[in-house]
Amino acid sequence: MTYVAFPSSKELDFTAIGRLCIDLNANEINRPMEQTSTFTKYVGGSPANITIGLSRLGLKTAFIGKIADDQMGRFIEDYLTRNGIETGNVVTDRTGAVTGLAFTEIKSPTDCSILMYRDNAADLKLTPGEVREDVIARSKMLLISGTALAASPSREAVFLALDYAKKHGCVIAFDLDFRPYTWTSAEETAVYYNLAAEKCDIILGTREEFDMMERFEQNPERSDQVTASKWFRHSAQIVIIKHGKDGSIAYTKDGQEHRAQTFPAKVVKTFGAGDSYAAGFLYGLMQGWTLEKSMEYGSAAACIVISSHSCSDAMPTSAQVDDYIARCERGEITAN
Amino acid sequence: MTYVAFPSSKELDFTAIGRLCIDLNANEINRPMEQTSTFTKYVGGSPANITIGLSRLGLKTAFIGKIADDQMGRFIEDYLTRNGIETGNVVTDRTGAVTGLAFTEIKSPTDCSILMYRDNAADLKLTPGEVREDVIARSKMLLISGTALAASPSREAVFLALDYAKKHGCVIAFDLDFRPYTWTSAEETAVYYNLAAEKCDIILGTREEFDMMERFEQNPERSDQVTASKWFRHSAQIVIIKHGKDGSIAYTKDGQEHRAQTFPAKVVKTFGAGDSYAAGFLYGLMQGWTLEKSMEYGSAAACIVISSHSCSDAMPTSAQVDDYIARCERGEITAN
Amino acid sequence: MTYVAFPSSKELDFTAIGRLCIDLNANEINRPMEQTSTFTKYVGGSPANITIGLSRLGLKTAFIGKIADDQMGRFIEDYLTRNGIETGNVVTDRTGAVTGLAFTEIKSPTDCSILMYRDNAADLKLTPGEVREDVIARSKMLLISGTALAASPSREAVFLALDYAKKHGCVIAFDLDFRPYTWTSAEETAVYYNLAAEKCDIILGTREEFDMMERFEQNPERSDQVTASKWFRHSAQIVIIKHGKDGSIAYTKDGQEHRAQTFPAKVVKTFGAGDSYAAGFLYGLMQGWTLEKSMEYGSAAACIVISSHSCSDAMPTSAQVDDYIARCERGEITAN
Amino acid sequence: MTYVAFPSSKELDFTAIGRLCIDLNANEINRPMEQTSTFTKYVGGSPANITIGLSRLGLKTAFIGKIADDQMGRFIEDYLTRNGIETGNVVTDRTGAVTGLAFTEIKSPTDCSILMYRDNAADLKLTPGEVREDVIARSKMLLISGTALAASPSREAVFLALDYAKKHGCVIAFDLDFRPYTWTSAEETAVYYNLAAEKCDIILGTREEFDMMERFEQNPERSDQVTASKWFRHSAQIVIIKHGKDGSIAYTKDGQEHRAQTFPAKVVKTFGAGDSYAAGFLYGLMQGWTLEKSMEYGSAAACIVISSHSCSDAMPTSAQVDDYIARCERGEITAN
Repeated sequence: MTYVAFPSSKELDFTAIGRLCIDLNANEINRPMEQTSTFTKYVGGSPANITIGLSRLGLKTAFIGKIADDQMGRFIEDYLTRNGIETGNVVTDRTGAVTGLAFTEIKSPTDCSILMYRDNAADLKLTPGEVREDVIARSKMLLISGTALAASPSREAVFLALDYAKKHGCVIAFDLDFRPYTWTSAEETAVYYNLAAEKCDIILGTREEFDMMERFEQNPERSDQVTASKWFRHSAQIVIIKHGKDGSIAYTKDGQEHRAQTFPAKVVKTFGAGDSYAAGFLYGLMQGWTLEKSMEYGSAAACIVISSHSCSDAMPTSAQVDDYIARCERGEITAN
Repeated sequence: MTYVAFPSSKELDFTAIGRLCIDLNANEINRPMEQTSTFTKYVGGSPANITIGLSRLGLKTAFIGKIADDQMGRFIEDYLTRNGIETGNVVTDRTGAVTGLAFTEIKSPTDCSILMYRDNAADLKLTPGEVREDVIARSKMLLISGTALAASPSREAVFLALDYAKKHGCVIAFDLDFRPYTWTSAEETAVYYNLAAEKCDIILGTREEFDMMERFEQNPERSDQVTASKWFRHSAQIVIIKHGKDGSIAYTKDGQEHRAQTFPAKVVKTFGAGDSYAAGFLYGLMQGWTLEKSMEYGSAAACIVISSHSCSDAMPTSAQVDDYIARCERGEITAN
Repeated sequence: MTYVAFPSSKELDFTAIGRLCIDLNANEINRPMEQTSTFTKYVGGSPANITIGLSRLGLKTAFIGKIADDQMGRFIEDYLTRNGIETGNVVTDRTGAVTGLAFTEIKSPTDCSILMYRDNAADLKLTPGEVREDVIARSKMLLISGTALAASPSREAVFLALDYAKKHGCVIAFDLDFRPYTWTSAEETAVYYNLAAEKCDIILGTREEFDMMERFEQNPERSDQVTASKWFRHSAQIVIIKHGKDGSIAYTKDGQEHRAQTFPAKVVKTFGAGDSYAAGFLYGLMQGWTLEKSMEYGSAAACIVISSHSCSDAMPTSAQVDDYIARCERGEITAN
Repeated sequence: MTYVAFPSSKELDFTAIGRLCIDLNANEINRPMEQTSTFTKYVGGSPANITIGLSRLGLKTAFIGKIADDQMGRFIEDYLTRNGIETGNVVTDRTGAVTGLAFTEIKSPTDCSILMYRDNAADLKLTPGEVREDVIARSKMLLISGTALAASPSREAVFLALDYAKKHGCVIAFDLDFRPYTWTSAEETAVYYNLAAEKCDIILGTREEFDMMERFEQNPERSDQVTASKWFRHSAQIVIIKHGKDGSIAYTKDGQEHRAQTFPAKVVKTFGAGDSYAAGFLYGLMQGWTLEKSMEYGSAAACIVISSHSCSDAMPTSAQVDDYIARCERGEITAN
C-alpha cells in the first residue's frame, strides 16, 4: 500500500532546508577529547547529511540554507556541489556569522558525545525572504529539521518554506533532530515543534523527542499510539518513532504499525545513524517500496555509516547498501 | 443565519490574552505634545479595552496577561477587577519589566498619534507555562491580539492558548492590531500573523493589516475576496476587513458580504474606535444577532468612545449604546 | 583659601555631560501612585537640573547629551534653550531610542519614590565621536554624572570627555548620582565609578555612594577620612560626603573638614535636593567664596526646590536664594 | 641602566590575566583552509603563550583567567599545570560559555590568517570578583592583554587587576594584542585601551595598534616619539613600538631609543612571533639585562617559534634560545 503520494511531474526529488555545519571528528578515538590531538573536518548537520545520503543513492536533490562567508562556508558549498546537490539557494551570510561546529568525542563505540559551537551560527541567519519559492515548487519532497526552528530568523524561514510546500503540493518530511543548544526554553521548543509538525506528512523522531513535544499534553504512559494518532488528526500520513536499540516503529494513518529487521554492524561510533537511516528510508518510500523494505534499507545504510569515521562522507551508494544487505544475509557481517 | 456557534454550557462568555498597558492621554489637546503639560492615566491595550467593553456590556469576562510589579501594574489589575473582569490569570512579572506606555497626542480630532514605550514591557513576558488551560476551557470565546505575537515568550504563550482553545471548543477571535514596535522585521510579522490566523474563527483587521500578512502571496489588487477566501480555507467563519472612512465589510464562509450603517459622532480623537467596535460587534454576535445588527452595535459603541477623552474608561454599557442609537435615529447627534 | 583654580579666560563657565530625561510628577500628592490620576511633565536628570540651576544663577552654561527623536526630546531641547543653555552639542538619536522617564510618587514629604523608565534611553546612546572637544575646551568646568557611566556607548563618551577636560585644563566635578538601573552588576559599577573619579577635581556623593565605590577596598568603619584621602592621592581637591539629615562635610586636600549651617524648609518632597545643592555650591565655588559660604548657598537653593512641585522648573535665581537666606535669618521660615 | 625596578621579595615572577583559547593549526599547510582536512589542537591566546614562554625560560608564573566547563577547558588547564604554571586563579565558567578557537590558515610562510571563534567565549566571562588580589600581591609583574578588554565582565576584571597591581607595587606590562573581534566600535576600543595603558609601566604594540589608540588625538605623522612621550606622562617607563620587518624600537622615559639586532629563521608561519618576543624580552628585563640584550633574546625566541608548527608548544627553554643565538652567530642558520 502507498501511504504517501509523491507528485511525479516535478524535476527535483528532494530538497532540504536547515543546518549546514562542520564536523571535526577526533582522529585518535576510544579516549576522552582532552587526550585527542588531531581532528578531521567533514560537512555535517542532519539535513545536510540526509541530502548527501539521498544524492549518493541517486536522487536529484537541492539544499536551502545559509553559510558563513569564510573558508568553512566555502568548503561546505563546494562539498555539496561535488556531491551533485543543487546549491542555488545556499546563500552566504554577510553579517559576520560563523560556521557551526561539532567536535566529536568517541570514548567507546557506545559512549560518544558532541561538543557544539552554535553561537552566531550562519545557518540560523537564513531569512524568510531568502527562501526561494521556485526551488520548493520544483521539488517532490521537502525535508525540515528541528534545529532550524531553534532561533529567528531561521525559524520563520522554515515556516515560510512549509507554506510554499503546502501551496505546491510538495510532500513534507520532518526530522525532529532536537538539540537543546540555542533554544531559550523547553516551552518554546515544544510550541514551535508542534506548530511545524501540524503541517508535515512524515514525522521521524525518537520517543524522547515526541515526549518533549507533549509537554503541554496528556500522554502519561508515553504511548506511541496516542502520539501517532494526534498527528494523524493534522497532516501526517506516517509517524516513525525510534526506540534506540529496541528498533523503530512506523505508524500509518490506517492504524497499522510497521517494523523491520535490523542488521549487525562493526560499530565505530553512533553518530550519523539517524541521518543515514532517514536517507535510506525516504529513498525507499520514493521508490514505492513497502514501509518494511524502506525501513530495512534505512537500517542497512545506518550500519554502513556507524562502521565508518565520518557521517556525511560515509553515506553509501545504492550498490553499497545492496552489497551490505547481501553480505549480512550471507552471514559475513557480525556485530562487535 | 448563525455563522459561529458558541458553546452554550461554559461559564465565561469571553477571555482575552495579551497586552495590558497604560495610556497617558494629553489633557491639553489640539496641539503638539511638546506643548502639553499634563497627562491623565488610563488602562490601555487593545485586548484590555475590548474586555472592559464586553464587561460593561454585561458579559462574564476574564483576562490572561502579565503586569509589572509596580504601581502601574497594580493600578491595571485593580481597574480590571473593579470592572468585573476575572484576573486570576493576570500574573505579575518578577524580572524588572515595566508597564508599556502610550502617550497620546491629539493635534486635531483627525490628526492623532501615539508615542509608545514598549521596551522591556511586562505584557510580552507572559510565558506558555503561565497560561492556564482551565480558564480557556471555561470560556465560550478567546480573543487574541497581534501585539502579543510581537516577541517571545508572549508569542509562544499565545500559540499555546490557541491550542487550548481548539482543544476545548472555544471560539477564537483575532484582532490583528498590528503595531510595528517590538517586531524585528516585516517578514517575521507576516509569518506569525499567518500561523495564528490559520487557527481562528473570526478575524478582524484593516485592509493594510491584511496586506501586511500577504507579503509572500499573490494578491496584487488587494482584493478583499481573495483575502477572505484564503482564511475560509483554514478555520475562519467570519473575516471583517475595515476600510477606514469607507466602512467595514464582514465576509462569511458562505460567500456573502455584510455591510452596516454607521452613525455620526462629535469626534474628540480617533483612538479606541477599533476596540469599541470589536466589543460591540462581538457582543452582538454572542447575542445571536445578525451580522448587520452586530456591526451597527459596534459602530455605535465606537462613536461613544471617540467622542470621549479616554478609551477604556469610556467603554459604554448596553443602555448607553441603545440610547446613542436612539438619539441618532431621532437626529439628535450630528458630526463635528 | 582657594581650593580649586578655575581657568579665567574661558568663555563658558560650566558644561555638563549626561542624562536628559522627563520627570512626570504626580499632581495628586500624599498618596500612592496607584491613586494618582494626572502627572505634570518637566525636564529632569541630575546633570540637566544642575545646569539649569547654574544658568538660573547667572552662569554661562552648555550641555553635552543626546535626546530622542520625538516630542519629549524636542521639549527637552527647547526647555534648555529657553533657559539660556547652549545646546549645540545636544545631539538627536536616530535609532529609535526613547526619552528616559521618572514618574514621581509622593506618599508624604519624607516618603518619596521614583518609577524609572530607562530601557533604550536616548541619553545612554551618546557616542564618543559625538562629544565635541571644542565645547569642553571653551569651558571652565565640566560636570559628569554617574548615570551616564551606566552603559555603553555613553560610558565611553564620558571617559573621552574626561580626557578632553584634562587636556584643556578644565576643572572636573563628579556628581556620583548612583542609580542601580541599567548597571549590570555592583562590581561593574564600582570599577567605572573609580576609574572616572580618579580624574576628577571635585567629587560629591552620599556616604552610601562612596561605600559602593569601596567594594574592593578596606574601609570597614566607612570612614570619611579614609575615603577622602584615597581621592586626594589621585586628582581630587575637594570631596563632599553627604550624610542626609546629618548634613554634608567637605574634605579638602589640606586635611581640613568644612561644615556649614542648614536652613529650615516647608518640604513638599525630597527630589531635587541634591541637584539644587550642587548647583548652589558650585556657583559659590566659582565666585571664589569660602567652602562654608558655598555650602550654605547650596543648602538654601535646595530648600527652595524641595518646597516646590518640580525639580528643574523650581531652580532659583540668585535673588531668590539671597531672599530665602534673608528670610530664614529673620526667622520667617520654619520647617513643616 | 635599569629602567624598571621589580620588587625582589615576591614569590611569583610573573602573572598574566586574560585570554585562554585553543589553536587549531592546519596540518596540511601552504594551501587555503578550504583544502585542509586535519587540524592539530594547541593551547593558545597571547597571554597564555607568553606565560608558557616565561615558564619554559625558568620563571615562576601564574595565570588569572576563565575556562569553559568542557573538554577544551580541561585540556587548557591541564596543559598550563604541566608547564609549571600556577592555575589556582583559573576559574571554570558555569554559564555554558565555550572555549575560544583560532583556526590557522597558512597559505605560505608570509600569507597566514586566522579564523576566529570568539562568540560566547569563556575567557571574556571572568568577573572582577573572581580576580584574586593575593595572586597579584605575590607577583613581581602583571601582564595584561588587550583582548581581555574587549567585553564585559572581563574588561572590568582587568581594570580591577590593574588596581590591585598598583596597590601592591607590581610592575605592569601591557601587550596591546588588538583584535577587532568582540569590540563594538573603534571608538570603544580606543577609550579602554587608553584607560588601561595609563596605568602600565611597559607597553608593547605595533605602530598600527598605537595608531588605533590615538583616534581622538593629534599625531598626524604617526610619530613614535609623540606616542611614547604621551605614555611617559602617565605611568610608562618603557614603550616598545614594533614596525614589522623594520624591527622594533624601545623608547625609555629618559628620552633614549633602543634597537637590537635580529636573527635569520626558516619561517613556517608568522603566528606566535609577538608572543615569543614578549616572553624573551620580559625575561631579559627581569634578569637585569640591558634593553638591547633583552630585545635580542626576544628576537631569538621568536625565530624559534616561527620555525615551528605551533605557538605555545614551541616556546623555547633558555638552553634552546642560547643555542639558537650561538648557531646564528656561527652562521649555521639562514633565512628561507
